[in-house]
Amino acid sequence: MYRYEQLAALIITMIDNGALAPGARLPSVRTLSDQHGVSISTALQTCRMLEDREVIVARPRSGFYVAPKPRKVLALPSASRPRARASAVSISGAVAALLEHSSNPAFLPFGCAVPDGALLESKRLDLSLARAARQHGARYNVYGTPLGDPALRGEIAKRAMRVGHMLSPDEVVITSGCTEALTLALTSVAKPGDTIAVESPTYMGLLHTLEMLGLKAVELPTDPIRGIDVAAVARLLETERVAAFAIASSFNNPLGSMMAETDKRALLEVLGRYAIPFIEDDVYGDLYFGRERPKPFIALDGGANTIYCSSFSKSLAPGYRVGWIAADRRTRQVIERKLAFSLCGAVLPQVAIAEFLARGGYDAHLRRVRQLLQGTLARMADAVEASFPAETKMSRPAGGFVLWLELPKRFDSRALFDKALDQGICFAPGDVFSASRRFRNCLRLSAGHGWNERIEDGVRRLGQLAVALLAA
Amino acid sequence: MYRYEQLAALIITMIDNGALAPGARLPSVRTLSDQHGVSISTALQTCRMLEDREVIVARPRSGFYVAPKPRKVLALPSASRPRARASAVSISGAVAALLEHSSNPAFLPFGCAVPDGALLESKRLDLSLARAARQHGARYNVYGTPLGDPALRGEIAKRAMRVGHMLSPDEVVITSGCTEALTLALTSVAKPGDTIAVESPTYMGLLHTLEMLGLKAVELPTDPIRGIDVAAVARLLETERVAAFAIASSFNNPLGSMMAETDKRALLEVLGRYAIPFIEDDVYGDLYFGRERPKPFIALDGGANTIYCSSFSKSLAPGYRVGWIAADRRTRQVIERKLAFSLCGAVLPQVAIAEFLARGGYDAHLRRVRQLLQGTLARMADAVEASFPAETKMSRPAGGFVLWLELPKRFDSRALFDKALDQGICFAPGDVFSASRRFRNCLRLSAGHGWNERIEDGVRRLGQLAVALLAA
Repeated sequence: MYRYEQLAALIITMIDNGALAPGARLPSVRTLSDQHGVSISTALQTCRMLEDREVIVARPRSGFYVAPKPRKVLALPSASRPRARASAVSISGAVAALLEHSSNPAFLPFGCAVPDGALLESKRLDLSLARAARQHGARYNVYGTPLGDPALRGEIAKRAMRVGHMLSPDEVVITSGCTEALTLALTSVAKPGDTIAVESPTYMGLLHTLEMLGLKAVELPTDPIRGIDVAAVARLLETERVAAFAIASSFNNPLGSMMAETDKRALLEVLGRYAIPFIEDDVYGDLYFGRERPKPFIALDGGANTIYCSSFSKSLAPGYRVGWIAADRRTRQVIERKLAFSLCGAVLPQVAIAEFLARGGYDAHLRRVRQLLQGTLARMADAVEASFPAETKMSRPAGGFVLWLELPKRFDSRALFDKALDQGICFAPGDVFSASRRFRNCLRLSAGHGWNERIEDGVRRLGQLAVALLAA
Repeated sequence: MYRYEQLAALIITMIDNGALAPGARLPSVRTLSDQHGVSISTALQTCRMLEDREVIVARPRSGFYVAPKPRKVLALPSASRPRARASAVSISGAVAALLEHSSNPAFLPFGCAVPDGALLESKRLDLSLARAARQHGARYNVYGTPLGDPALRGEIAKRAMRVGHMLSPDEVVITSGCTEALTLALTSVAKPGDTIAVESPTYMGLLHTLEMLGLKAVELPTDPIRGIDVAAVARLLETERVAAFAIASSFNNPLGSMMAETDKRALLEVLGRYAIPFIEDDVYGDLYFGRERPKPFIALDGGANTIYCSSFSKSLAPGYRVGWIAADRRTRQVIERKLAFSLCGAVLPQVAIAEFLARGGYDAHLRRVRQLLQGTLARMADAVEASFPAETKMSRPAGGFVLWLELPKRFDSRALFDKALDQGICFAPGDVFSASRRFRNCLRLSAGHGWNERIEDGVRRLGQLAVALLAA
């Protein structure tokens, strides 16, 4: 963790536990610098970041103050404490049913973690596709190589370097979204009956894939802010045989948690000791709320033991189904499986994305998308605070665009789900995020869309339903 | 088998065994009708079909004559007689290496069974894609349903009806080419360690997929004209436990064989007795050389026990990677696996193909492609006859666009492969078409392209290399 992140965490804790009340003036930047042994510029960076997150506000020529009404009045969800034992996964029916509802445009879109096409403004990308099809359709009407379009692999390798990971285009294999990347990664390192370690809660699609591949899951204690508990991992590995870890690079879905760099390194070190392959899913990595994109694991171990999976689905083109995988010394196994399961990807969508990236402006696009999604997420958090039961605990995502709500133990999010569907509202009930069907008292709300009255009203009505259900 | 097909087979046999010499006059249509107890119109249909196949020629006001020089002087390859025992598949390295060479445009393209983009003239399709991207890009920049674009599924269902198969759009699941369809079919009905029955020789990609899924293969005796030996299947099933059959609907790749409809029904009857799922791969079905498209298996058993897999890759759009699967009562299992392995397909390519089909003209397109490919195949057969060793045996495909050559047992097609690559020629050595690495004395040539001097010269040089190798 960077020093400014440590200092920021400290200030947030002081606000959370009341040591710094709403409206209170923060120590000056110079005082912070002196008290905490950081440079003036680090102290200032800390304050700027907290200001970005609306935790504090700047008053010109006066200093920084705790935001008058703290952005989050709801407590944080508890860190999970799952059983440290592998279990078969049996979730496919629930996931399929949920996805069917989530993709139904008749429902308010809090169910599926996908950004709205209108919000992404992919016009320039679509024009690249149209141009490629018109001008070079016949040239690209061939089976591509299983690795995928060389220009796109080059662009991906270039961007990887910027987050600290040296990657050759020949190590990149284009996939049908991150889902296929995860399938290739898992089948490359594990065979049916093997156990995969996952976060708890974790992405439901990962659990569904594990089940279909006949893999077991062991769930790891996960904190809503700091992510996986590395000490617990070390204890687990003393007794359990784990074939691979499959973990979000940053911004766990659904928690939005982010592991500190020191924790990431510690986790890699533990896995390295046991030579356990590490599969990371970085689809949300570009959607950070901090000043900097967090480093993926692969940038920390140079790919020695890490298989990196990502896609353009969360920030540019969900409809294009273009993802990728970088598997270093397991590249051959990945290519063989790509050949076996889908031969190669559609050529023109890859060519279009390559051209879009080569022409520049992707960073500006990402900045815009980040701001929009962060804005929607903040308003959704406000709406949840205003309408959900007071006992509701709510995540504080460091990136991505989903909120995780935890209600009292007796709350049944499945019952809420049925009632909400009747009112035209879809969300993801908590139990699909766990192989052992934990989190039935939790739910995930997606904020991958713009904000308007219809959306706000939907969150409000959902909150009222939750209040009624809890009172019943 | 239709009566005209039976009669045609009889006439071909008479020509092959010399009973009807080159240049000889056939009995009149009326005589054929009397002698064989068929109607005049059936006898005429028989002659027209044989004329199409250049087996006989019509002389106006005189009748039909055996073609002066019979189209094929080379004998047919032998029917295969593989061991009736399941074995693990270990072919992935060979398949991956071959595909790498096959997709290299520096080599003459006899290696990969894919039609040339230029020959397909996909301009109209590409314009549909460009239009959809320009006009509705944002609308389609979403995750599609795992089933795929509804309009495309509707068009596919409509076309299925025309080959005698009643299919609801809701039973169609769009896939990333036929490869993903086969993966979904296999994983829906078999688990690692199970045995799948395949033709011998069979499509190398299928074997590669079996290996990656941990499935065993048992190879079935297959005749280069009539396809699978149904009696042998019945015998096999008395002793071997088979989880599923995975068979070409028509035009086995690489043999180009076509099972008669009676044999297809008999095979389904045998499998029905054991309740063994039947997976059919119909990618070559539209590329028939006869008067009529052969019926897929699913049209004969109404889908009761059949999982149908196909794609647009062999006749329209290899670069679009759009295939489909129809699995009847196993549709749910297929959708769950589609979700798990790739979530959903790219939307715009599906929308473009749907529009292309809806606008009409696909049949005219198919007629043109069939004629071109049949023409190339005929010329390639001539070139093989003219340059390969006289002992070479050659398939007589009833459809598709590949030739299968069998050389004397001592011939090593791997040695030929290496020498041919040196001369810039790629083809598929025979052993990749067998799980037990049979057919090392065989090879497959793809004719999925136009015909020109460079291509002709390539076949000639390959033949000369084979002659030299056999003499050495």
